[in-house]
Amino acid sequence: MSKANLFYAQSGGVTSVINASACGVIETARDHKDRIGKVFAGRNGIVGALKEELIDTGKESASAIAALRHSPAGAFGSCRYKLKSFSENRREYERLMDVFRAHDIRYFLYNGGGDSQDTANKVSQLSIDMGFPITCIGVPKTVDNDLPVTDNCPGFGSVAKYVAVSIREAGLDVASMCESSTKVFVMEVMGRHAGWIAGAAGLATEREGDAPHIILFPEIAFDRVRFLRKVKSCVRKYGYCAIVVSEGAQNVDGSFLADAGGADAFGHVQLGGVAPFVANMIKSELGYKYHWAVADYLQRAARHIASATDVAQAYAVGKAAVEFALAGKNAVMPTIVRGKGKKYTWRIGEAKLSDVANVEKKMPRNYISRDGFHITERAREYFAPLIMGEDYPPFRKGMPRYAQLKRMLVAKKLKKWRAT
Amino acid sequence: MSKANLFYAQSGGVTSVINASACGVIETARDHKDRIGKVFAGRNGIVGALKEELIDTGKESASAIAALRHSPAGAFGSCRYKLKSFSENRREYERLMDVFRAHDIRYFLYNGGGDSQDTANKVSQLSIDMGFPITCIGVPKTVDNDLPVTDNCPGFGSVAKYVAVSIREAGLDVASMCESSTKVFVMEVMGRHAGWIAGAAGLATEREGDAPHIILFPEIAFDRVRFLRKVKSCVRKYGYCAIVVSEGAQNVDGSFLADAGGADAFGHVQLGGVAPFVANMIKSELGYKYHWAVADYLQRAARHIASATDVAQAYAVGKAAVEFALAGKNAVMPTIVRGKGKKYTWRIGEAKLSDVANVEKKMPRNYISRDGFHITERAREYFAPLIMGEDYPPFRKGMPRYAQLKRMLVAKKLKKWRAT
Repeated sequence: MSKANLFYAQSGGVTSVINASACGVIETARDHKDRIGKVFAGRNGIVGALKEELIDTGKESASAIAALRHSPAGAFGSCRYKLKSFSENRREYERLMDVFRAHDIRYFLYNGGGDSQDTANKVSQLSIDMGFPITCIGVPKTVDNDLPVTDNCPGFGSVAKYVAVSIREAGLDVASMCESSTKVFVMEVMGRHAGWIAGAAGLATEREGDAPHIILFPEIAFDRVRFLRKVKSCVRKYGYCAIVVSEGAQNVDGSFLADAGGADAFGHVQLGGVAPFVANMIKSELGYKYHWAVADYLQRAARHIASATDVAQAYAVGKAAVEFALAGKNAVMPTIVRGKGKKYTWRIGEAKLSDVANVEKKMPRNYISRDGFHITERAREYFAPLIMGEDYPPFRKGMPRYAQLKRMLVAKKLKKWRAT
Repeated sequence: MSKANLFYAQSGGVTSVINASACGVIETARDHKDRIGKVFAGRNGIVGALKEELIDTGKESASAIAALRHSPAGAFGSCRYKLKSFSENRREYERLMDVFRAHDIRYFLYNGGGDSQDTANKVSQLSIDMGFPITCIGVPKTVDNDLPVTDNCPGFGSVAKYVAVSIREAGLDVASMCESSTKVFVMEVMGRHAGWIAGAAGLATEREGDAPHIILFPEIAFDRVRFLRKVKSCVRKYGYCAIVVSEGAQNVDGSFLADAGGADAFGHVQLGGVAPFVANMIKSELGYKYHWAVADYLQRAARHIASATDVAQAYAVGKAAVEFALAGKNAVMPTIVRGKGKKYTWRIGEAKLSDVANVEKKMPRNYISRDGFHITERAREYFAPLIMGEDYPPFRKGMPRYAQLKRMLVAKKLKKWRAT
């Protein structure tokens, strides 16, 4: 293949290591200047391609690109925007092709979750039909850890580390004070559809009595009576009870826990999340003094406590994506493959986008303890290596120094895009 | 003074560095075995003295004590328990004296905020009256930073660092996504009575447009109209608006913001805190998509991102407290004194407990910008050195290793204590 330009875009909710993947893409592309011309990044993801808002990463210094490795969030901007199917919105795909053609883009690297891999797959197929074949490579990313085929997803290991460290620290705080003050602490974590993140918080429990004492998973229907009994028994045994609740925790009927009790008689919006809901339930039923925390974006942006394993893997999938493209592969995604040995090892593997697109990997039932309130040894073996190692960003004057990019746009060549 | 035992107790809300003070106390006492016999720590603070539950720190290894320096929360347990005045509850003071006498305790080191310094001061006076003089030294501690005389309080620098780092990281997350998703992010921080912690989050703003864009202080009466106008202008200018709100944010009438709008028509308890309240107000008035976070105990327990300056100062006040006691001082507290030069320096000073007790240091008005929504350069100069330096705990298997103590109690010599 002759020399051509590369388009890279970040998609969906960002993570603390998605920029490490961007760093892997750009640095690797720069190592292959004979084959890859410019590397464009979509301003705010795929929307940047539609609007022809292409950031010329060539204008960024080597040190700015290197700093992406230790910078959280999406340096080029991301978006929640899913291309419709070809039959529903043919114009969008044609526009993408027009932009790619106008800027001689022959490589499309899409950094996102299941939806994005689906989009990349469609673009690959359509580009052939439309006579302008594009090499499409997916770059996995999601804190939700729900992509199939790959052993784990870049972004997950760091949020896992954050939640495990946080509940350990807050648990010690509550333990100090529980005799005369707060007895119950509830921490809400992300994971609307699966309990991967909530489960990882279980790593903080190394010895009997360590926080968290209870984890509420989306996979296990909430049983109020059993839950309250468990809280009471923890307070009796350990003096306090530290609870991690997934934002996706559900009732038997599949409704979200917080929604169920959230709206008042006027249908007013529930202001709090599931953490205050659960905490308040405990207060009114058992009378314990409580505190609660909702980490929200703090957890997925917490680059300061990223997992070194996660950072290395995020970089590696970015690098591999470029290498795959140069090796003539298409419609594939680099994966993380776990070694068989007792000591954790990993290498880069490969999955077809068609096998990855729109498939959600659920947490296996045998990762959750029989009583449904904690993780099993098996889960622990899976999670533990993913949070291994620290990879602190550089600090100056007490604050982390994150990448500062110029984000200069390439001159437009086409008419303005109007969404339908 | 002949050789005698020392009693140390932790009091009130714990911090991520109060154990560093404990470490300073115990290590320094161990260096003076000729003068100080045993070091007892109150199990759950002063309550441990009343109940004669004295932890013999001599049973802890040198490495366990050294590990206190990097361990958050109160290793010996703390409590929210304020001794009444002597006239109201003479029995309590007599009991303290009985316990101190029974265990030959002649040094009392009390690690806490304003209330605790008041208690230490009273104990000192009464012990003389009661014919068993106790050397009482306060050890300052509070995330609220509201002790007078001292330039700052151990515990504050680390929570300041946590909130500044967190809003920077979450701000970058929101910035990445704001074109198509969340436009407003609200982070609630501690500080029921003063905006020190909220103000410190302002350190994250180094350049125009950096998060946080708005800080809501307890010191500035909330003005809904001006606030909403400011939010709107930030979203227009920067694409998003990142807000830090103090839990103590107040209406003009002095009521807490979240309380005011919290109860529904049935008087149901408001489940959320002030962050969801503010976020919801913005949603209903301006229509922006929002996210919010409540860090709660996570912020004051976050030893993993402690300020090295704070850790050093926390250790130093513990050490100084023992040295003061040995130097024959009484009813005093070590303070942090800031050097006059341009480069930040600090040394240990000394305050009378009577000058410290029950005085709350408010944040000066000139630390808050004229419009009331951010901090001034002057505040920045005050806050900046306090978050300087990182002091990471050791990690094993991806998790911080915090001190594991035996907490062995000394045999009781007195009758069981019954609170009235």
